[in-house]
Amino acid sequence: MPSNAIESRFVGGANYAPLTEATVRPFLATHSAAAELLGGRPEEWAVREVGDGNLNLVFIVKRGGRGLVVKQALPYVRLVGESWPLPLDRAFFEYQALTIEAAAAPSLVPRHFHFDKAMAASIMELLEPHIVLRKGLTAGMKYPLLADHMAQFAAATLFLTSDFASPAAEKRERQSLFCQNIALCKITEDLVFNDPYRIAELNRWTSPQLDDIAAAFRADATLKVAVQELKWMFLTRSEALLHGDLHTGSIMVTQDDTRVIDPEFAFFGPMGFDLGAFMGNLLIAFFAQPGLRDPGDARDEYQHWILETLESFWFGFSSRFLAHWRAGGDGDAFPPTLFADVSGRTKLEEHRVTFVSRMLTDAIGFAGAKMARRILGLAHVEDFERIADPDVRAACEMKALHVARELMVGRARFGSVGEVRALAESVARERVT
Amino acid sequence: MPSNAIESRFVGGANYAPLTEATVRPFLATHSAAAELLGGRPEEWAVREVGDGNLNLVFIVKRGGRGLVVKQALPYVRLVGESWPLPLDRAFFEYQALTIEAAAAPSLVPRHFHFDKAMAASIMELLEPHIVLRKGLTAGMKYPLLADHMAQFAAATLFLTSDFASPAAEKRERQSLFCQNIALCKITEDLVFNDPYRIAELNRWTSPQLDDIAAAFRADATLKVAVQELKWMFLTRSEALLHGDLHTGSIMVTQDDTRVIDPEFAFFGPMGFDLGAFMGNLLIAFFAQPGLRDPGDARDEYQHWILETLESFWFGFSSRFLAHWRAGGDGDAFPPTLFADVSGRTKLEEHRVTFVSRMLTDAIGFAGAKMARRILGLAHVEDFERIADPDVRAACEMKALHVARELMVGRARFGSVGEVRALAESVARERVT
Repeated sequence: MPSNAIESRFVGGANYAPLTEATVRPFLATHSAAAELLGGRPEEWAVREVGDGNLNLVFIVKRGGRGLVVKQALPYVRLVGESWPLPLDRAFFEYQALTIEAAAAPSLVPRHFHFDKAMAASIMELLEPHIVLRKGLTAGMKYPLLADHMAQFAAATLFLTSDFASPAAEKRERQSLFCQNIALCKITEDLVFNDPYRIAELNRWTSPQLDDIAAAFRADATLKVAVQELKWMFLTRSEALLHGDLHTGSIMVTQDDTRVIDPEFAFFGPMGFDLGAFMGNLLIAFFAQPGLRDPGDARDEYQHWILETLESFWFGFSSRFLAHWRAGGDGDAFPPTLFADVSGRTKLEEHRVTFVSRMLTDAIGFAGAKMARRILGLAHVEDFERIADPDVRAACEMKALHVARELMVGRARFGSVGEVRALAESVARERVT
Repeated sequence: MPSNAIESRFVGGANYAPLTEATVRPFLATHSAAAELLGGRPEEWAVREVGDGNLNLVFIVKRGGRGLVVKQALPYVRLVGESWPLPLDRAFFEYQALTIEAAAAPSLVPRHFHFDKAMAASIMELLEPHIVLRKGLTAGMKYPLLADHMAQFAAATLFLTSDFASPAAEKRERQSLFCQNIALCKITEDLVFNDPYRIAELNRWTSPQLDDIAAAFRADATLKVAVQELKWMFLTRSEALLHGDLHTGSIMVTQDDTRVIDPEFAFFGPMGFDLGAFMGNLLIAFFAQPGLRDPGDARDEYQHWILETLESFWFGFSSRFLAHWRAGGDGDAFPPTLFADVSGRTKLEEHRVTFVSRMLTDAIGFAGAKMARRILGLAHVEDFERIADPDVRAACEMKALHVARELMVGRARFGSVGEVRALAESVARERVT
């Protein structure tokens, strides 16, 4: 039995209190490793709260050229307020997931220095001069290594935590732990897979421009069956430890470096969910570009780069995933010794290719679901929100919704990621009707 | 957090000792409810060890017309010996699963009176005059209510523990617990999905008659990919709380009554696994009949009854499962409110039918896997073992293996359970070559 399943029960507690810019210093001072990292006296540490996500407090603490980050869970959803409580143990799941990710892809996550269970807080590496990828994409920045880095992250974390690489005993123990990340999974279950397709108090969209399409989504039974099939997969397919929230706001970048942050939604789910999250958010960035264009900007070429990145990501992911698989693993699925002869190797290789193409189908479906929820649901994204003119914004969002629906309903019809790209290009060229 | 996940850690312990016919009496005397049930003084209780399964001790304790059963886990695999240790906590998972099954299908499981954690033992209802279904089938007994009872059991337990009926929070908590049933899942992972397809020390088969087909199975790459696809589903699809070992040796019957026993392999897995276990074991009984025939017996008509039962089981299961679904549930999957209008109801109903046909595909594949492991692997079954003449036995087993392979490799090609029946009938008529 894993001690973790028990340990996770005691996150937060009587001494928990949300940190403030004033209390971060004494908190850090009690952690000698952190205090040494900054050096000097606590009074010399500059503290700034910078959390712009939906859930947590994030403090940057600096002294001269040195710095670190303190991320603390709040007992409610920050985006909504204290009316929506959320358990603090998510900080523990994030810490656990980050540890597992770090073993699989050490250069692609922030270093984690300390988890303070009582305060539900992690002390982590300050990523500088990184910015959130979503901000970079809205600003029209190119990241030449992004596709490959993300392919590497997804292939390593998904393969190495799956039954291909992880013995069933290890996998089931981890799964037992992450099954406890119930509240965060529930957010996805409701906000991604239900609310955009029904009247829900917290939904919002660019109104009145999108009123009709929002109503059409709510009335579209074919679409709702497709979305619920995806939700069924989310609920039942325990294929690998997912990041669980792999959108472009969970990635910090420079020209040379890529770090995936914030795995607090981690759980064992369908691999396509992480892949689709990243791909869907690239498509959001793609469709937002015309609305973000300043006079004179050449955003067409930038849109082209986004789709290149999408395509390269998929090719990089699939070839890296296959390479992991061909190299073998200690998992219980498809033991290589069963396929050691020529015909075994041939048939197994055929199956690998089939398996990857099924992952693409899943990823395409989830990409669509992740796009729609950012336009019709509670949590919106800067890509579209930065477009001040509601008519322009609605035109961009409308196209994205058309593609999102097609990805969800028609996911089995896409034979390659190139067909996804072709669909996006074709819809981008259309006039909005 | 469920207290169960923690509670399960403390099964067995310093005071654990295997019970004997001599120590069962003082053990029961400490449990007043059990003692009252039997009445009289311990010296008047007649104790008999009757465990004929592969794993546990089973004592029947009687006084006059009264009786009960004590089932105790041993710290090793009884079939193999102390060289194969097995954790005692499986007794706890069995007790938990039985409790959940009893809520879903109270008339179809034995009553459970007490779980003794320290001794890893359950005190349960004595089923009398029930016999193990497998014995009844080898004896040529018909059970007119069997198909419907098993349909009812499978539909209720699978639907009610799935995301259709169980809110995600409850489902994930239960899943977290049953993910700890690692050792028992591992037995299935190895003995069902690997060993029959490789050289394994514990394998045995009717030799030399089946040597060629055993070698052919080990060399059959197409088959091995199919089996590993099924294993992937076993490892990753957390659809419902399965019984996990639903063969004809886990069912006690009379003409009027059916009880499913021994859910110690319980875990969250693909629904088709339970369905296929029952169907595959009916097919084993079907193919064993010619070898069990005494001169003058009319086993053709009995074989016909077995296939009728198989078919009725499937029709009963699917109609009952659909009825549960149509009645609605509290689960997170396919919330009925999303499909409240006419087109929603229509599309959802279409999807339900598709879903059930996918379950049939899964069940057919798992049925094949469950058949082959009983002929080529470690654990054999009385159906074939009772056939004394090895040539006759091998002829029966050969036909069963042909069907098993076809079910696994061709599972997606079967459009109905009638086609499975037709295949079995056709292979049964063939001369063995």
